[in-house]
Amino acid sequence: MENKLKKNEMKALNNVKYNQTIEFKNKPVINGNYSVVGPKEGQGHFGKFFHYVMKNDLFNEKTYEKAEKKMIEKALSGAIHSAGLKPEDIDLFLAGDLLNQIISSSYAARSFDIPYLGLFGACSTMAESLAIGSCFIDGKYFDTVACATVSHFSTAERQFRFPLELGNQRPPTSQWTATASGSTILSLKGQGPRITKATFGKVTDYGISDVNNMGAAMAPSTMSTMVAHFKDTKTKPEDFDLIITGDLGKIGSEILIDLMEDKGYKLGINYCDCGQMIYKEKQKPLMGGSGCGCSASILNSFIINKLRKKEYKKVLFMATGALLSTTATQQGETIPGITHAVVIES
Amino acid sequence: MENKLKKNEMKALNNVKYNQTIEFKNKPVINGNYSVVGPKEGQGHFGKFFHYVMKNDLFNEKTYEKAEKKMIEKALSGAIHSAGLKPEDIDLFLAGDLLNQIISSSYAARSFDIPYLGLFGACSTMAESLAIGSCFIDGKYFDTVACATVSHFSTAERQFRFPLELGNQRPPTSQWTATASGSTILSLKGQGPRITKATFGKVTDYGISDVNNMGAAMAPSTMSTMVAHFKDTKTKPEDFDLIITGDLGKIGSEILIDLMEDKGYKLGINYCDCGQMIYKEKQKPLMGGSGCGCSASILNSFIINKLRKKEYKKVLFMATGALLSTTATQQGETIPGITHAVVIES
Repeated sequence: MENKLKKNEMKALNNVKYNQTIEFKNKPVINGNYSVVGPKEGQGHFGKFFHYVMKNDLFNEKTYEKAEKKMIEKALSGAIHSAGLKPEDIDLFLAGDLLNQIISSSYAARSFDIPYLGLFGACSTMAESLAIGSCFIDGKYFDTVACATVSHFSTAERQFRFPLELGNQRPPTSQWTATASGSTILSLKGQGPRITKATFGKVTDYGISDVNNMGAAMAPSTMSTMVAHFKDTKTKPEDFDLIITGDLGKIGSEILIDLMEDKGYKLGINYCDCGQMIYKEKQKPLMGGSGCGCSASILNSFIINKLRKKEYKKVLFMATGALLSTTATQQGETIPGITHAVVIES
Repeated sequence: MENKLKKNEMKALNNVKYNQTIEFKNKPVINGNYSVVGPKEGQGHFGKFFHYVMKNDLFNEKTYEKAEKKMIEKALSGAIHSAGLKPEDIDLFLAGDLLNQIISSSYAARSFDIPYLGLFGACSTMAESLAIGSCFIDGKYFDTVACATVSHFSTAERQFRFPLELGNQRPPTSQWTATASGSTILSLKGQGPRITKATFGKVTDYGISDVNNMGAAMAPSTMSTMVAHFKDTKTKPEDFDLIITGDLGKIGSEILIDLMEDKGYKLGINYCDCGQMIYKEKQKPLMGGSGCGCSASILNSFIINKLRKKEYKKVLFMATGALLSTTATQQGETIPGITHAVVIES
């Protein structure tokens, strides 16, 4: 009996290794999640699913940067609370955001007394943190890990494009950075949806240099990671209840569908993009939402809800990042993209 | 026999978990390392140990940012070559740097066709990447992982302080951002020094707001991680041949020695700081070197050399990061620090 147990445990610990994909034998459980969004996002399609809708974009702070920090702090503490835990129960905090030196995440980490690893993957951060966090849990390095990310329309516009006060007109290909944050708690034990696989993406660049066309810049990297995932795991688009990217927007999603078709994969009605769905048409989002908080907030509300209720059985969550830098752009560089993926099963 | 083997393997896989420290049972091997530095660093104390000294700060590129990207690319390919491997043998690239959107690392990742995780830990990045990379190797998620970081004096000054063209005078507490890069290859198999433990740091802030006094901003976080390491592993300063921080500089090291004494630990002559040592006194570095490349280049040349020759048996490498942001500073924020640590044994 003892030997049998050991054999099973051995098997459990012997991780199957693919090319870019890891299959988790101990399948980390999502036992806590929380989402915080701004007023505009609260009026969008997912308004009633978000846990907390801010009354104003400043979140009663003096600057948008301070508001952004407060949002990720609220998302993190909400997720910890929803898991029935206390901050001291969290072994590690994995987070990143769009701001230079990821200040929202780092200052939030200062507020909680938890070991912290700062990440930068632009809008791919939610999947990056879940993929790394899942390895830490699956490998039994930590019992409980918190993952989080945040973005804010006003801080992102100021940093990457123009300050709002300038009143610039937005070109038709532009996306609207969501004011949103999401946090997930991963544990070795508990009941709930589980992360079963993670695919680590490669930096991919098809030569887009237009800072107002992020969807086109990111789509090739999403195709690269999606093809790697399907090949590594011998799956196809039909094997998932939902394949969700975040955030390619309208143009980017269409490019992805075309790119995937070129590779022999047909994305059907089970494919959606968070950026394309977060706002209602009357909110005039142009190509849709973007920002790492967009997919993070939808994942940590609507999608995880559906997984908990077993209305979704298997979801491929792909967070897509545009590695946009104003300095590099000014020096003639194009915008590379990166996409990481995790599979969540109910 | 078979059972015995399984028992041993089981034991090997059952990772001992401490509070902030992970002890690796499969002890990842350092089987490749490389360092690239600028001309000033080449004239410093470690000049003859660095693998490659650039003839000029621009590295024959048009901008300092492009030079910085070329440096990390050279460090990465040098490390891969020194391990007797090819880029396609590397399963994952873990990197970060000081520039906004970690462009040096992300654009370098674009040049190599390797799955990539972007990190941001300011000058703590070398230890952060080694700590995460070691978990990936130890947990058998990947066979071979590359870790790297880079910094450049001219890009850092432009981004964090003043453009060089302004000719600003440097205050006496300031440190000199090293133009340097280092890369390490970690594998499950092979001969060489091994990473045996990693301690994940917490964001710590004692209220320093002077952007020209980074050492003082970082020292409290270094104390926090060092005390956690000693307590978690039941060790003391005398147990190491070398305890090396990077980069507190002169003031920061003195503050660390005082802070550790308050906690009951006496740091003796086996304690050094990379920033304090990289330049010669006649080079007028004021408080010493800084930048994530400073400790990365010294680790990946002098220190790993000494470990290979078994002149050092056990080294505690602590990379210290100041989470400095010009936006946050302008909004009245203080500068938090974070320090991650790894133990390397010969």
